[in-house]
Amino acid sequence: MRIGELSRRTGVSIPTIKFYVREGLLPAGELTSPNQASYGETHEQRLRLIRALLDVGGLSVAAVREVILAIDDPDRSVHKLLGTVASGLVPRYDREPNAGMEDARKQVAALIAARGWRVQPGNPASEALAVALAAVDEAGHGSFAGVLEAYADAAERVARADLGWVAHNLAREELVESVVVGTVIGDAIFSALRRMAQTDTSDRMYGQAT
Amino acid sequence: MRIGELSRRTGVSIPTIKFYVREGLLPAGELTSPNQASYGETHEQRLRLIRALLDVGGLSVAAVREVILAIDDPDRSVHKLLGTVASGLVPRYDREPNAGMEDARKQVAALIAARGWRVQPGNPASEALAVALAAVDEAGHGSFAGVLEAYADAAERVARADLGWVAHNLAREELVESVVVGTVIGDAIFSALRRMAQTDTSDRMYGQAT
Repeated sequence: MRIGELSRRTGVSIPTIKFYVREGLLPAGELTSPNQASYGETHEQRLRLIRALLDVGGLSVAAVREVILAIDDPDRSVHKLLGTVASGLVPRYDREPNAGMEDARKQVAALIAARGWRVQPGNPASEALAVALAAVDEAGHGSFAGVLEAYADAAERVARADLGWVAHNLAREELVESVVVGTVIGDAIFSALRRMAQTDTSDRMYGQAT
Repeated sequence: MRIGELSRRTGVSIPTIKFYVREGLLPAGELTSPNQASYGETHEQRLRLIRALLDVGGLSVAAVREVILAIDDPDRSVHKLLGTVASGLVPRYDREPNAGMEDARKQVAALIAARGWRVQPGNPASEALAVALAAVDEAGHGSFAGVLEAYADAAERVARADLGWVAHNLAREELVESVVVGTVIGDAIFSALRRMAQTDTSDRMYGQAT
């Protein structure tokens, strides 16, 4: 199909499609004449993935590029890809090491040990957790760490569902893409469900029917 | 204390503190002379909260302002405040209604009914969930909806922990602030835990020790 048709089907404007091609997010169309390129199903599919990562996942264009490179790399095993996704999609904070961070890292290490999780210390997700715990503590709400056990239980439940879903997607390309989609959009889905469940719980504890 | 001391204690630069005062995030200091203002514990505490919401919660300055206004509003009941937090902190997407959104909304309504959640249809979190589900579906991964039940179980577990923690903070100001902190930073904490649990589960399913 021509670029105009691709734009109509996906709701992405022609200049934006061209921008994605220039930025390396989307492969160029096949040239059918010096001025005209033809796009196929794979372009359409990839374009929807890009939009989902940008709009729902809230990723930057640079982060989307990294993810796409990982998807397209045939040498990346599923477990390694998961690692790339975990590192690439965890927000990084520039924080100077301080006493709070040291305590938070110890707290995280203790949690990993208690759970028997096979997670390296200093892994980006562990660092992100330490940063969040240090921030809660600095804001004067260190007691929030009391929910960690319940959160970790819930995270295990979610991760089992995530991996179980991934295991059902047999073709490698789909499998790899599904890890990324599940990781990024899964956060948005869980966050929405958590707020809904909070509203329900709050209503039962404090409210009348809203 | 003077502004210089406040800056040293919190690690926030003086121009940034002045910016927060101008933007209405932080109350002005008490004038002790025409050129000098004095700041107290409450300023320090509020400043740490602002930084946590911006850095870890990833909120915009405008969103932080809304949250602070809600915290400072004495007429807001706990249940109403939770509602404000849920609406204010849920990302909003500008999407044109399409067939995908209609299906996704039905899926969300069915989930709410099956769970018996006291959540109004059209509530911002429900809309955010519908948007995420429509995006997954558009990206060609509609089967991801199969994890919804597990996610909802986990969300209930997390919400009970959240509200249980809130219920222990008795003073209203603290209580209200803790709802906000817990909601925003709780997302970051859960997202990190989920990736850690994924790494563990993936290692057990696919990997050798990484």
